[in-house]
Amino acid sequence: MAMTLDEIIQRRRSIRRYLPQPVEKEKILACLEAARLAPSAENSQPWRFLVIDDPELKAKVSEKAFSGIYSTCRFAVQAPVLVLLMAKLDFLANRLGRLVQGTQFYLLDLGIAGEHFVLKAEELGLGTCWIGWFNARAVRKLLRIPKKYRLVAIFSVGYPEKRPTQKQVRKSLEEIAWFNQVRD
Amino acid sequence: MAMTLDEIIQRRRSIRRYLPQPVEKEKILACLEAARLAPSAENSQPWRFLVIDDPELKAKVSEKAFSGIYSTCRFAVQAPVLVLLMAKLDFLANRLGRLVQGTQFYLLDLGIAGEHFVLKAEELGLGTCWIGWFNARAVRKLLRIPKKYRLVAIFSVGYPEKRPTQKQVRKSLEEIAWFNQVRD
Repeated sequence: MAMTLDEIIQRRRSIRRYLPQPVEKEKILACLEAARLAPSAENSQPWRFLVIDDPELKAKVSEKAFSGIYSTCRFAVQAPVLVLLMAKLDFLANRLGRLVQGTQFYLLDLGIAGEHFVLKAEELGLGTCWIGWFNARAVRKLLRIPKKYRLVAIFSVGYPEKRPTQKQVRKSLEEIAWFNQVRD
Repeated sequence: MAMTLDEIIQRRRSIRRYLPQPVEKEKILACLEAARLAPSAENSQPWRFLVIDDPELKAKVSEKAFSGIYSTCRFAVQAPVLVLLMAKLDFLANRLGRLVQGTQFYLLDLGIAGEHFVLKAEELGLGTCWIGWFNARAVRKLLRIPKKYRLVAIFSVGYPEKRPTQKQVRKSLEEIAWFNQVRD
């Protein structure tokens, strides 16, 4: 039986241990399709996904991404798939947004679309982790990513070896949500 | 029968026409709970939600938010509820993130949590619209939002009067996703 949205959200964990088992390409495509349909500022769709599922290339990318001061995210080396989340910035929405509103809307948009990917992966039994701490410069160079794309985040993707039983602690609703008046 | 994630994602539209019908508080709380469980950089949970559902206050806020050059989002005046999406920035993750990685992770995080809210609202039959174009300064002043919070976006929330039959056009999968090599 299909999972409800609440079940997907409650069940999702950031997964940091993966089985070597490869991930079916159809599942990755289903996650990308969920991301593709996300909303964005002025419908600009700034997101670009670079899926690294070739085992040799994946080994090279993860070596570049998660060495030295970036070793804290070294768990991602184990994941059979990495997905690089990039932004294409030549959009009116983003230039105007930063100038006038002070907000880089493309980051909100990548958060939205990226999370569609993550929720769909969870529904398909895959584990993911949003990673922001990696050697972007080395990865760009290795993969020859053109300057017009900003490399914002990496997802590790694979079948979880072990699932944390509990979510990391969350703030209570009273700490993060108020009605009609700021309460803090 | 509960909707699947795919159905929720495919059905969601940015709603710009609302019925005057008020929104049940339990539904807003369910959306907030979905947002509360979102992942974030270093589990920093920078999101804060200020729900404006008092009709008089809502009228004042929307007048401030959507006048003058911001009238292009005036449709939101009709919505019975506005939700202000704010970020609390005094977190290691955000200071380090901007300095070292060049990314304002709190914007990714607000995109993620905000979209949990939006997807849950869709499941509950509510319409929403992500709005980034509003007079943040005037809204801050009216609501006396402390400086420690950054006002990033507003959701309009309500029962749709009319649902666009089609989604706005999306790029094809080939335009936004590649395997092992950038194709553009």
